[in-house]
Amino acid sequence: MTGARADLAVIGGGQLARMMQQAAIGLGVRIRLLAEGPDVSAAQVIPDHRVGDHTSLDDLRAIAADVPVVTFDHEHVPPEHLRTLEAEGHACRPGPHALLFAQDKGAMRTRLSELGVPCPRHGRVSSLADLEAFGFPAVVKTTRGGYDGKGVWFLESAADAEEALATGRDLLAEELVDFRRELAALVARRPSGDMVVWPVVESRQADGICKEVLAPAPDLAPRLADEAAEIARTIATSLDVTGVLAVELFETTDGRLLVNELAMRPHNTGHWTIDGALTSQFENHLRAVLDLPLGPADALTRWSVMVNILGGSVDDLESQLAVVLDAVPDIRVHLYGKAVKAGRKVGHVTAVGDDLTDTLTRARWAADLLEKGTKDD
Amino acid sequence: MTGARADLAVIGGGQLARMMQQAAIGLGVRIRLLAEGPDVSAAQVIPDHRVGDHTSLDDLRAIAADVPVVTFDHEHVPPEHLRTLEAEGHACRPGPHALLFAQDKGAMRTRLSELGVPCPRHGRVSSLADLEAFGFPAVVKTTRGGYDGKGVWFLESAADAEEALATGRDLLAEELVDFRRELAALVARRPSGDMVVWPVVESRQADGICKEVLAPAPDLAPRLADEAAEIARTIATSLDVTGVLAVELFETTDGRLLVNELAMRPHNTGHWTIDGALTSQFENHLRAVLDLPLGPADALTRWSVMVNILGGSVDDLESQLAVVLDAVPDIRVHLYGKAVKAGRKVGHVTAVGDDLTDTLTRARWAADLLEKGTKDD
Repeated sequence: MTGARADLAVIGGGQLARMMQQAAIGLGVRIRLLAEGPDVSAAQVIPDHRVGDHTSLDDLRAIAADVPVVTFDHEHVPPEHLRTLEAEGHACRPGPHALLFAQDKGAMRTRLSELGVPCPRHGRVSSLADLEAFGFPAVVKTTRGGYDGKGVWFLESAADAEEALATGRDLLAEELVDFRRELAALVARRPSGDMVVWPVVESRQADGICKEVLAPAPDLAPRLADEAAEIARTIATSLDVTGVLAVELFETTDGRLLVNELAMRPHNTGHWTIDGALTSQFENHLRAVLDLPLGPADALTRWSVMVNILGGSVDDLESQLAVVLDAVPDIRVHLYGKAVKAGRKVGHVTAVGDDLTDTLTRARWAADLLEKGTKDD
Repeated sequence: MTGARADLAVIGGGQLARMMQQAAIGLGVRIRLLAEGPDVSAAQVIPDHRVGDHTSLDDLRAIAADVPVVTFDHEHVPPEHLRTLEAEGHACRPGPHALLFAQDKGAMRTRLSELGVPCPRHGRVSSLADLEAFGFPAVVKTTRGGYDGKGVWFLESAADAEEALATGRDLLAEELVDFRRELAALVARRPSGDMVVWPVVESRQADGICKEVLAPAPDLAPRLADEAAEIARTIATSLDVTGVLAVELFETTDGRLLVNELAMRPHNTGHWTIDGALTSQFENHLRAVLDLPLGPADALTRWSVMVNILGGSVDDLESQLAVVLDAVPDIRVHLYGKAVKAGRKVGHVTAVGDDLTDTLTRARWAADLLEKGTKDD
């Protein structure tokens, strides 16, 4: 750590903090980072970092000391610690009162329903009897701690319920939504309430992990695009979110929108904005939490396609980079400095262009080369 | 400094190295930096840095140890040290054989003339008699060490010559070119010889310092645009430049191009490429020196205008940022983390758009607000 002032403390040293630093360099914003280890993704690129534990109040206090604003790479900081930091004069953005609804799916469903935001039918369950009363098929989730498909079970009948119930954790049951596709609406909001909303995107998952994002969502009815943006604005305002809020949505087969999940930080469905929008989600997240005016969220080109690079058979991403840039010249590559492990998000690629098929083809080709070393046919 | 591997050693911690780091983050490239001080512009954003002196072979060796490739934020490293690093197995890009022509204006003029590249009439001078033989008016420059208007004299007659001759340094006399405007052609070149050339830009100076860059150069005859690009390619190839080469040119009032200066590193006339081109000069500099395939240099929009922020009456750039982003939402701001001193380059802004007048107006307005706190009328 250096002795220089910092403008912003960031808790968590993953790729989101790493990409915040790219934006921070341009804005002249100095980040102080709490990192999980000495060489995690963001610690590689933020000089002013300290290794510590985001569940330790002492470590959080040490990072936040003399820093006016605190923000996050993830949603796992205990809310009671954030309330302590607030009481000690730091602005936590988003604050614990908002972050609760990204941390606890049960609280989120209750609050969104109160707000009249459309959600799947849902109910808290703690026994087989509760589940049978809810009905099958059902999706059962732990209310806290799940991500990327973990802590989620798809139950056809009571016979499938054992594993979920055996966790002994608070569970939420939701109807199995008959959806056409998944969408996401991203909004950045300042403490003053000012907001910008990026174009609504389509998100395609594989095994519960976001794999591809198409911006804007192709052939989305203008009515639904407006509704998705309005849902994002309503949630951001009603929950008093500061920074980026991502609202994951289902587009149902009968043409309705239902909220799936919330995230209160830059989100995988917004990575395309680095290369495809006038202002990236990372820059507007920084601007929002530092209470600076937000930048325009318009797309720069007709189409942007982002494809995640998941850990595969390519071990040495840096060497494979030469192959990819040679095969697919018109591509933007983002590597996270992470060791390759099966299925781990280790980078992403973005292609921009006027033709969707061509743009999607280029992005998939580049991602395939970085995952498997060959083009997937 | 951390103990992790580095891919690239960068000598010099100014804003060019700082902006290289933004590109390095995306590529997963790890930079090790030799910085002039513990908190210079690039040291603020590159964890793996060491403070040292670029004229000290020991400091250069310490930074380059175990790093395969060395590149530069400036042209001031002594060539004999670079030859030593090369002999010890490091690839210096650009190499000392090329860098010579960016360090020594006399050698540059001689070599370019041999290549048939159009230059102003010139001659080495060391006495009043030499100057009188060359003729007046004349521009006299020290062959080494001048920049941003320093080490340059405009002589109307022999009566003006005293200061230049009193330096006791090697001097070059050049004709006073009757030019319409200044242009710049930027090329990135790999060791293999592969090159990309960005659109030719117009560069506008104030007091010998680059103030505004318009990309592409408005109303430039296609014949001259092609010629400028060809001059850049010829010089890069003939001098075996690796990385970015900037060729500053005069467009004469009678429609010819003459080479003014060379720089072998990312250059102020290429800052617009961060926001206005498919691949920035910083990314292609890294890709070129690491011998990775180069990215396309096409412009993203019709016009890009970059305006430098020179140290003025605004001391606290970070606070003024809120004013600027509010007044001029559609602008990209780049601050260098440098203390404000009169006339010092402390940042730049870039506007992009379809209308040149509007784009220029926005960029100037933002830069004025960051320099003077008010709009210049």
